[in-house]
Amino acid sequence: MKIRKLLLIIIPVLLLSLQANAQRQVIQIPDIPGYITLKGDLHTHTVFSDGLVWPTFRVNEAWRDGLDVLALTDHLEYTPFSADVKVDAARPYEIAKTLASRHGLLLVQGVEITRGMPPGHLNAIFLEDPEKLRLDDVTEVMKEALRQGAYIFWNHPGWRGQQPDGITRVYDLHREWFGKGWVHGVEFGNGRTYYPEVIDIAREHNLAILANSDVHGTTADSYTPGAVSHRPLTLIFSKEKSMTALREAMFEQRMVAWIQNILAGSEQWLTPLLQASLEVEPPNTVVGENKWVTIRNESAFLIHLEKDDDEAAGPNSIRLEPLTTVVVQIPRDVNSIRYNVVNTFTIETSGPLLLDLEIPKTLID
Amino acid sequence: MKIRKLLLIIIPVLLLSLQANAQRQVIQIPDIPGYITLKGDLHTHTVFSDGLVWPTFRVNEAWRDGLDVLALTDHLEYTPFSADVKVDAARPYEIAKTLASRHGLLLVQGVEITRGMPPGHLNAIFLEDPEKLRLDDVTEVMKEALRQGAYIFWNHPGWRGQQPDGITRVYDLHREWFGKGWVHGVEFGNGRTYYPEVIDIAREHNLAILANSDVHGTTADSYTPGAVSHRPLTLIFSKEKSMTALREAMFEQRMVAWIQNILAGSEQWLTPLLQASLEVEPPNTVVGENKWVTIRNESAFLIHLEKDDDEAAGPNSIRLEPLTTVVVQIPRDVNSIRYNVVNTFTIETSGPLLLDLEIPKTLID
Amino acid sequence: MKIRKLLLIIIPVLLLSLQANAQRQVIQIPDIPGYITLKGDLHTHTVFSDGLVWPTFRVNEAWRDGLDVLALTDHLEYTPFSADVKVDAARPYEIAKTLASRHGLLLVQGVEITRGMPPGHLNAIFLEDPEKLRLDDVTEVMKEALRQGAYIFWNHPGWRGQQPDGITRVYDLHREWFGKGWVHGVEFGNGRTYYPEVIDIAREHNLAILANSDVHGTTADSYTPGAVSHRPLTLIFSKEKSMTALREAMFEQRMVAWIQNILAGSEQWLTPLLQASLEVEPPNTVVGENKWVTIRNESAFLIHLEKDDDEAAGPNSIRLEPLTTVVVQIPRDVNSIRYNVVNTFTIETSGPLLLDLEIPKTLID
Amino acid sequence: MKIRKLLLIIIPVLLLSLQANAQRQVIQIPDIPGYITLKGDLHTHTVFSDGLVWPTFRVNEAWRDGLDVLALTDHLEYTPFSADVKVDAARPYEIAKTLASRHGLLLVQGVEITRGMPPGHLNAIFLEDPEKLRLDDVTEVMKEALRQGAYIFWNHPGWRGQQPDGITRVYDLHREWFGKGWVHGVEFGNGRTYYPEVIDIAREHNLAILANSDVHGTTADSYTPGAVSHRPLTLIFSKEKSMTALREAMFEQRMVAWIQNILAGSEQWLTPLLQASLEVEPPNTVVGENKWVTIRNESAFLIHLEKDDDEAAGPNSIRLEPLTTVVVQIPRDVNSIRYNVVNTFTIETSGPLLLDLEIPKTLID
Repeated sequence: MKIRKLLLIIIPVLLLSLQANAQRQVIQIPDIPGYITLKGDLHTHTVFSDGLVWPTFRVNEAWRDGLDVLALTDHLEYTPFSADVKVDAARPYEIAKTLASRHGLLLVQGVEITRGMPPGHLNAIFLEDPEKLRLDDVTEVMKEALRQGAYIFWNHPGWRGQQPDGITRVYDLHREWFGKGWVHGVEFGNGRTYYPEVIDIAREHNLAILANSDVHGTTADSYTPGAVSHRPLTLIFSKEKSMTALREAMFEQRMVAWIQNILAGSEQWLTPLLQASLEVEPPNTVVGENKWVTIRNESAFLIHLEKDDDEAAGPNSIRLEPLTTVVVQIPRDVNSIRYNVVNTFTIETSGPLLLDLEIPKTLID
Repeated sequence: MKIRKLLLIIIPVLLLSLQANAQRQVIQIPDIPGYITLKGDLHTHTVFSDGLVWPTFRVNEAWRDGLDVLALTDHLEYTPFSADVKVDAARPYEIAKTLASRHGLLLVQGVEITRGMPPGHLNAIFLEDPEKLRLDDVTEVMKEALRQGAYIFWNHPGWRGQQPDGITRVYDLHREWFGKGWVHGVEFGNGRTYYPEVIDIAREHNLAILANSDVHGTTADSYTPGAVSHRPLTLIFSKEKSMTALREAMFEQRMVAWIQNILAGSEQWLTPLLQASLEVEPPNTVVGENKWVTIRNESAFLIHLEKDDDEAAGPNSIRLEPLTTVVVQIPRDVNSIRYNVVNTFTIETSGPLLLDLEIPKTLID
Repeated sequence: MKIRKLLLIIIPVLLLSLQANAQRQVIQIPDIPGYITLKGDLHTHTVFSDGLVWPTFRVNEAWRDGLDVLALTDHLEYTPFSADVKVDAARPYEIAKTLASRHGLLLVQGVEITRGMPPGHLNAIFLEDPEKLRLDDVTEVMKEALRQGAYIFWNHPGWRGQQPDGITRVYDLHREWFGKGWVHGVEFGNGRTYYPEVIDIAREHNLAILANSDVHGTTADSYTPGAVSHRPLTLIFSKEKSMTALREAMFEQRMVAWIQNILAGSEQWLTPLLQASLEVEPPNTVVGENKWVTIRNESAFLIHLEKDDDEAAGPNSIRLEPLTTVVVQIPRDVNSIRYNVVNTFTIETSGPLLLDLEIPKTLID
Repeated sequence: MKIRKLLLIIIPVLLLSLQANAQRQVIQIPDIPGYITLKGDLHTHTVFSDGLVWPTFRVNEAWRDGLDVLALTDHLEYTPFSADVKVDAARPYEIAKTLASRHGLLLVQGVEITRGMPPGHLNAIFLEDPEKLRLDDVTEVMKEALRQGAYIFWNHPGWRGQQPDGITRVYDLHREWFGKGWVHGVEFGNGRTYYPEVIDIAREHNLAILANSDVHGTTADSYTPGAVSHRPLTLIFSKEKSMTALREAMFEQRMVAWIQNILAGSEQWLTPLLQASLEVEPPNTVVGENKWVTIRNESAFLIHLEKDDDEAAGPNSIRLEPLTTVVVQIPRDVNSIRYNVVNTFTIETSGPLLLDLEIPKTLID
């Protein structure tokens, strides 16, 4: 009997101590009505420019990190490892594509056009033949990218390496290109930095905003899942998970940037995203003039709410960590509460999103 | 401009660094068709017997831990703090009930009948007046508990303090009470220990099995969320979240015990619970004779699958940590795979649950 | 052979999966020349006032948290659990003292004198008979405490519950008591809050500063070891680990407060504490005009250095997490670097500590 | 006043939220009398064979992981990335050496001789010109390596890829080479696997034992600091931190392997290493016939002690997590306790190390 019991215990303990499969973390980001939410990073590097990892590593890393979309965007003009590694902008995608398709990851072919300011650095993605962009005149590079149907966005526009005081300055060349519709987006966030002034620029020039890692080393060394320093993501609201739908969604600006626990984008997408992330339950109890209500954060976002109007119902401040709930006390007859989501920027106002939360009735009411 | 930018950055950083609300962890345990899954701990102590915390602490702790159901079950006959704390079995529930109702926690009134072996220790819960059980003769105590409509279960039946070699021995008194239907359940798991032999006993005597913490200190000191050493739970499949539905579910044995990442219970409940926890996606890609398929674990359970038949399709072993996915390679024409869930015990066989996973077709197929 | 190998593997795995003993975390805080550094929390509560845990729980908690000194300081005048728990200020210490002595914890008997403002709340510790302080007139309470040889400090002086705008206001009654030497210290830090303005008050009135938890629930629920939100501590530089030496050290103001990764106190103690925490190694390499030097943080403190003078040698900013090292590049002929420790406040200046770090020569030099 | 206070708070919060430097984790492994303990990993790969990272990444990774010694040992005969990456066994070391010297890391040049079984895979390290080993006949390769003064060890000897049942089989060719002294060591541990049978082989053939990562991806993805799945290390007891002293130490077999919380090696080195890791303090208290004694684990090792003799003093089992202490009760007049360190293997016995711990007297005694 003792042996049998021992074995019953040993077997699961042993099995549980083994690690059998590579595993992917699920990032809890909800879909919104009419669209699925693709989690993308559209700016990464490999040893084919100045990154420190092999292209297949980026695919496994993105898959483990819970991403749906990954672009490999090695520098076109900057290849410091060329004494040892072949210079060929098409190779990273070629090497990685089979692995990506097995893992269900949408792998996007791209390059980083790497010039002095202006125009600085821009990513061109959805390319067919990146080596054709290896041209001297940057205007010709842009034309060739657009000929291939590229989506083009301005990278880390306030980067101190090219902007003396770390603030984005828009040059005439940018204005010209924006006017022609050559540039479709701009990075609000890059790595561990975000540029608040990009919100104003995006509104003025009708650009979409993105947040990407620009990772050269590894995301495991740079970011902490669940913390402020999570991997930055561009969230894309797509009709389905396919390359065609992804392209369409990006050109139609259905995107929100998520970096350092800040969500930035148009109210059109922030509102349904936050509504889908928060669930208000019917009151737990109603006693006298008050009721106690549970608010659930079903997302991986940290959501920090501050009351818009001091006189209104509800606590001044509600902070919801990822996958947590809070209980708030509110007056019995209040059926809706209004809060600013402090950790958001809307393109429309450069300020926080204003969110109304409806309180369901109890079954008895 | 610099000041404005600084403020834009400072404000969210500052706000995010504050902790505004007590928060509850969401434990991702799915509902099953027809029932919601209540997460319960039906065995805990306070300073009113030999526990080290105040009754309201237990409520906040259970709420933060993500529970739906909590029973306070102080020892009826063992009150070592009686020099300083009033001896009254009704007080823990009275003190804690308002807080519980605000937080939407179903708080169950109970006591632990604390005798030498046999019968050892038993919990009587759903009591109306626990002080009426303060009687010398344990048979009278049982009768009074049953008169009040109590659900009664045998605690830590293999506890070394009362079973010399740590193996559950069933005494004649137990058999008599089992025969009369006086005892409704038995702890398969208690604290950090589980008793495999309890599965056989439950089958033979038609008892439900439970897993509870029996916490005296705090769960934060004893358990680690997401690890093997998670807080043990009794999962109860209830028609709704109410005291009436909870009672009905327990008396109808709609329960599964979860402890040390082991799930134990009837196939009737384990099968839908595991099916609801795992989602198989349509193939990511089909190449030649093979397809690559993603399996998602949408639950907080660790799920360890071992192939039932070496000749069958799929990898020998699939390990899914909580909220992760894996990709497996299987032959193109296979539409279902069969695995043992190694970290389960079914009451029907004392062995692992056998689970069939259907593989959806691609949209094109 | 296979069996033997299996057993060789199983045995350690099994043993390693068991948890055999309660364990104490070692907090890496260095001693300083001439003194050992005692880690203390001098403000905690139990169910004997409005705390939520039994006195022995506080002892185990403090021991696990790595403390050397613990004071139990229940409210003298506020006992909301008196319907169930005996009102007796001497009981917490009596109940806990045996356990503390076994664990080598210096357990200090105290109470929190709990009055409206002024004087607000003060802790009197090292008491002999706390019940003798149960007097109406607060001046009489102070006199009795001093008669018993108490060390008295002002608690959370900027607490919003008693200071309308959350800023410490010193009342005439405080000035009178400070002048008479009745009050020996003041809390710079309490719980998760610190009061910068207390530095000025401490300097003006010659008070020592402390940081304590004032814990009512549990430290596991309130604090995270190794994070900004670590348990606050009063560090006491004592000739030895004994009650006599502890008292002497406190009355001689040999203390530093540590809260939210801020260290506050006199330069006399901050300087040797930081010097003992940081070790500069001989250069790793010297090439051309530069050398590369490793700086080790051997403490549990986060240490953030900012250069005092932009023209001087060394990087502008050096951040050392607990138990980490960094490598810095400095000119070959520089033998000392000077930094502000940004996360300190000195009583002398209310500003950060200025610290000189000597760079050892290589063996060859 | 409010502004000043706000700024005092904002400044440290802001500064603390920035990450200024790459940081190295200190692994707390003690030196032993007469020697410093170097932490080494002597088996790693880069993109120059089938690894997934650039050589400088390995240096930064090793430095961050707290290592003192790193060997880059790309496969000599297996270079799957040769369509894109130059085939040159000298390049990884050349690329990484400057970075290593700045960080004070001893970087060792090596290759992995990669053949079928026998002889399987062997690492040759401390090479001067690795390309000279590119020869057909493996005997000639060995001779050339030895000519260059190489230290040679057998890699993952029980690897299923080359040993059908996962158990090390020693072939005649190995015996011949062992007899000639051509092979100096053997991996007891590789990656996440250890081979208990290697202990017997090492004893019989007078080989040193090592534990290395054989990392191809990244250690951050494969290992968890402080957990059972820590990065495996070869601990080398060296007269100083220099390449010369390191070589001498290795050829003199002053090594211990550390993998999966198992320490394996000669009693000659295990005994002082464990003695330096554990500190027994004078009794906390002596009451009646018993005393309570604190045992401190000052190392990063998990140390699991089981009593050798049931009748002897002390608890049956003592488990010490890294950097923790426990309190044990022992009879007053006992001055030494004897335990097996269960998670060790000694080369002398293939069993656990037997360790005597002296108990210091109290000052009064």
